[in-house]
Amino acid sequence: MKVLFIGDIVGSIGRDAVEQYLPRLKKKYNLDVVIANGENAAAGRGITRAIYNDLLQMGVDVITMGNHTWDNKDIFDFIDDADYLVRPANFSKDAPGRGMTQVSKNGVTISVINLHGRVFLPPHEDPFAMAVEMVEEAKKTSPIVFVDFHAEATSEKIALSWHLDGKASVVVGTHTHVQTADNRIYPGGTAYITDVGMTGPYDEVLGMGKDNVIYKFLTNMPARYEVPKKGRAVLSAFFVEIDDKTGKAIRQERVLINEDNPFQV
Amino acid sequence: MKVLFIGDIVGSIGRDAVEQYLPRLKKKYNLDVVIANGENAAAGRGITRAIYNDLLQMGVDVITMGNHTWDNKDIFDFIDDADYLVRPANFSKDAPGRGMTQVSKNGVTISVINLHGRVFLPPHEDPFAMAVEMVEEAKKTSPIVFVDFHAEATSEKIALSWHLDGKASVVVGTHTHVQTADNRIYPGGTAYITDVGMTGPYDEVLGMGKDNVIYKFLTNMPARYEVPKKGRAVLSAFFVEIDDKTGKAIRQERVLINEDNPFQV
Amino acid sequence: MKVLFIGDIVGSIGRDAVEQYLPRLKKKYNLDVVIANGENAAAGRGITRAIYNDLLQMGVDVITMGNHTWDNKDIFDFIDDADYLVRPANFSKDAPGRGMTQVSKNGVTISVINLHGRVFLPPHEDPFAMAVEMVEEAKKTSPIVFVDFHAEATSEKIALSWHLDGKASVVVGTHTHVQTADNRIYPGGTAYITDVGMTGPYDEVLGMGKDNVIYKFLTNMPARYEVPKKGRAVLSAFFVEIDDKTGKAIRQERVLINEDNPFQV
Amino acid sequence: MKVLFIGDIVGSIGRDAVEQYLPRLKKKYNLDVVIANGENAAAGRGITRAIYNDLLQMGVDVITMGNHTWDNKDIFDFIDDADYLVRPANFSKDAPGRGMTQVSKNGVTISVINLHGRVFLPPHEDPFAMAVEMVEEAKKTSPIVFVDFHAEATSEKIALSWHLDGKASVVVGTHTHVQTADNRIYPGGTAYITDVGMTGPYDEVLGMGKDNVIYKFLTNMPARYEVPKKGRAVLSAFFVEIDDKTGKAIRQERVLINEDNPFQV
Ligand SMILES: [Fe+2]
Ligand SMILES: [Fe+2]
Ligand SMILES: [Fe+2]
Ligand SMILES: [Fe+2]
Ligand SMILES: [Fe+2]
Ligand SMILES: [Fe+2]
Ligand SMILES: [Fe+2]
Ligand SMILES: [Fe+2]
Repeated sequence: MKVLFIGDIVGSIGRDAVEQYLPRLKKKYNLDVVIANGENAAAGRGITRAIYNDLLQMGVDVITMGNHTWDNKDIFDFIDDADYLVRPANFSKDAPGRGMTQVSKNGVTISVINLHGRVFLPPHEDPFAMAVEMVEEAKKTSPIVFVDFHAEATSEKIALSWHLDGKASVVVGTHTHVQTADNRIYPGGTAYITDVGMTGPYDEVLGMGKDNVIYKFLTNMPARYEVPKKGRAVLSAFFVEIDDKTGKAIRQERVLINEDNPFQV
Repeated sequence: MKVLFIGDIVGSIGRDAVEQYLPRLKKKYNLDVVIANGENAAAGRGITRAIYNDLLQMGVDVITMGNHTWDNKDIFDFIDDADYLVRPANFSKDAPGRGMTQVSKNGVTISVINLHGRVFLPPHEDPFAMAVEMVEEAKKTSPIVFVDFHAEATSEKIALSWHLDGKASVVVGTHTHVQTADNRIYPGGTAYITDVGMTGPYDEVLGMGKDNVIYKFLTNMPARYEVPKKGRAVLSAFFVEIDDKTGKAIRQERVLINEDNPFQV
Repeated sequence: MKVLFIGDIVGSIGRDAVEQYLPRLKKKYNLDVVIANGENAAAGRGITRAIYNDLLQMGVDVITMGNHTWDNKDIFDFIDDADYLVRPANFSKDAPGRGMTQVSKNGVTISVINLHGRVFLPPHEDPFAMAVEMVEEAKKTSPIVFVDFHAEATSEKIALSWHLDGKASVVVGTHTHVQTADNRIYPGGTAYITDVGMTGPYDEVLGMGKDNVIYKFLTNMPARYEVPKKGRAVLSAFFVEIDDKTGKAIRQERVLINEDNPFQV
Repeated sequence: MKVLFIGDIVGSIGRDAVEQYLPRLKKKYNLDVVIANGENAAAGRGITRAIYNDLLQMGVDVITMGNHTWDNKDIFDFIDDADYLVRPANFSKDAPGRGMTQVSKNGVTISVINLHGRVFLPPHEDPFAMAVEMVEEAKKTSPIVFVDFHAEATSEKIALSWHLDGKASVVVGTHTHVQTADNRIYPGGTAYITDVGMTGPYDEVLGMGKDNVIYKFLTNMPARYEVPKKGRAVLSAFFVEIDDKTGKAIRQERVLINEDNPFQV
């Protein structure tokens, strides 16, 4: 199974980049499944039903979330019906939505799990214990298991990835909005990258208009963070080919598309 | 001027990697100056006089530091004589050592500034205000200014880099120990990378033995972090060519050497 | 000089408590000066011009602030004219407003300084260095100096108070909204209390409606914090008598008024 | 049942204060049970078997802990046999020791539960969910339930106390080392105080020698925190009388003993 994961889609620039490049990426990598992090899809803050539907329409099969899950109140209206949207599984037991979903393509099933880090972040349930339990549960259905670990600290992300080596097919990090260059396949067969990076404005700070962010750092005064609607885009993704029988990753490749690194066939 | 910056050197595996590859990198890139972050050079915690001298011997011209500056008490004995060691300039006014130094090679002078972030980190002096002041001061001597911003949050690093675009020749991030893939030259001529990544054990967590780190995440119980002395290495660096007259970056390249990405001539 | 400091006034319940008890407290303690923290006076978030004027009308002479200074946008319209409102002095140099003011009563002048902590809080300028400088500056005018240190951690508050012992007349802590019982006069003559506590709803969580706060802790889901408009009140304050000549505190008393501790003449 | 809880005992000055005053407090309040927080009993860092035995010898019936539980390695040797030592129940499932214990005096049983906060602290298991479960479990044995919530933030402590009102007999906060003045009995019958305060050196910062703490705040340089062995003491405690049948608190009193507030018969 050939899987592409697209990092945090930020605002309309990010969604447009997906629309523009996903067809070419599907062709280039002969993709079976596309997963994307959508926690910033609605103007940087959460996701709406309309955007969820649009992304599925564009060819995304599963959408993962993160700390911005509840930012747009629209989500409370559709999350329980959204079979292909997963929010961090280690959120509260009382939170709506689900932390895992499954998709089958060409006779092969992939489980997609979303988890949230706890270093420099609110105290969600333990992602380490939950990750192992959920992966084992998922493997009862299919050996192919994909984990999006939405976390800040490189130590927490790398530690979880090693802990899941040989258990999950792929562990990707999201949240820092900057792609890392440490993509690899571990000895146990798990493909890993500390952060896939974001898909959105190329010339700002994590997708937010840079003037206000810099003003905030300079002054510690209140500043409104806004996602610009115009400007150059970056698309960040991670491609993995997984053995259908063993669930082990056999090939991986970082994808980074912007004017400095144009799309190559 | 052709400059190579080597990311956080961790323990003996990291130092050995520098010794092994620096001569080849000097040849490959025809380097004028080598800068390296040495805050983890002594078994992961700080630096000693002996290691400082060894690194200079190997061909490093300037060593930068970070949050681990004072971990090895040896530093208090030699920092005031160490002309080519800089610790974050926004540490306390009462702290020993300096935050900037200058090196001249082949008739060209480069200023090297070290600064420390404040997001998810202790409240040092404001790095944004200090960065601009120091860069302007440095440019009175030479247009070539190199900044190592040792910080955790991608937002803080990217914001500072945009703030210095057109002012500094190069801004690199260090501290997360994972190389990012967002290296580029900004419109104003500043070369930038969010994190250069570390130089040390390849199969651990930020250079620390992974079993204990995972145990810590699993249990929240005390665990001793140790840098292994055996195992595969990774070397992470960032090459930049700078125009001697304008101080603007004209070429940049990420350097990542490990068994998955072997050194290439 | 006899001074009363009223802790963080929260919403209309807090303001009503001031109106109800301040005349009696003035009589009881024969007060010369009244200072109050007003960072939560406007429905828990900041202060407005109307509320600022109301509090002065009620007999408050100086209002101090804290992390909520900018919550109500009204403040940008009047802070530069508000001679008796001080916001933390270690905010950015670019922030509007002032960090110290002076009031004279019956021929005696008191300087009031507001500072902000940095432990578990944003990285403002160093309050320790600034405190000493400002107190020394203030003493050129009058030996009576009052410091409101708005901070979270008991360690930071106690450390600063000892550091100012013999320098400031009074150091009070604010921000935690819970009165502490460690009020005392230090050997050097500085009166101190770690937190004066808040003035507002008595049966909630720091003045915020408790159901939503508990829901937030239980679920980590978004919850809107609101200050109730009805309910029992608590008034928290700290009385200090200061020697006009030496600026040293000679008497201090905690003031806590609620149904469990009724006002006593 | 008449219960006294002694706040964080710090070092030998703290232990000596317990030895000196506990007999008089037992007589004054006609105590049935004495509980004490011992996380700083061994020179500020954890507890040893010898000190555990000493405290029991002095008349303490149950010892609670906190974030310093594992600081002294001695604890790993005796915690599993220490029937009257409880560490936070929401530590990892793999942690040694227990989070609840029971003591019977004069035919009445009290359950003592220790929990750890998560605001500004490491991400332990959810104390809110666990508190309710444990209190309900404990009430199967006896209606008298005592909770020591070791936490930093006043919001978290007050929120948990309201959440347990009518469920637990007493909820005390520990950890900030400063006694609060908000002791009361809630409408549902739960006695509460945000922090009992510490028992140890009176003229330092949280029990740690103040010169080094101030130096650390002034410079951000490394400093060794030590508990002085000489100096004046403070003893902080909280007395509650509980109805044996209903488990509801019927009387409460703060206890604070130091030279400024001498012991009164
Ligand atoms: Fe994101
Ligand atoms: Fe995020
Ligand atoms: Fe490092
Ligand atoms: Fe570092
Ligand atoms: Fe407040
Ligand atoms: Fe505040
Ligand atoms: Fe303690
Ligand atoms: Fe503690």
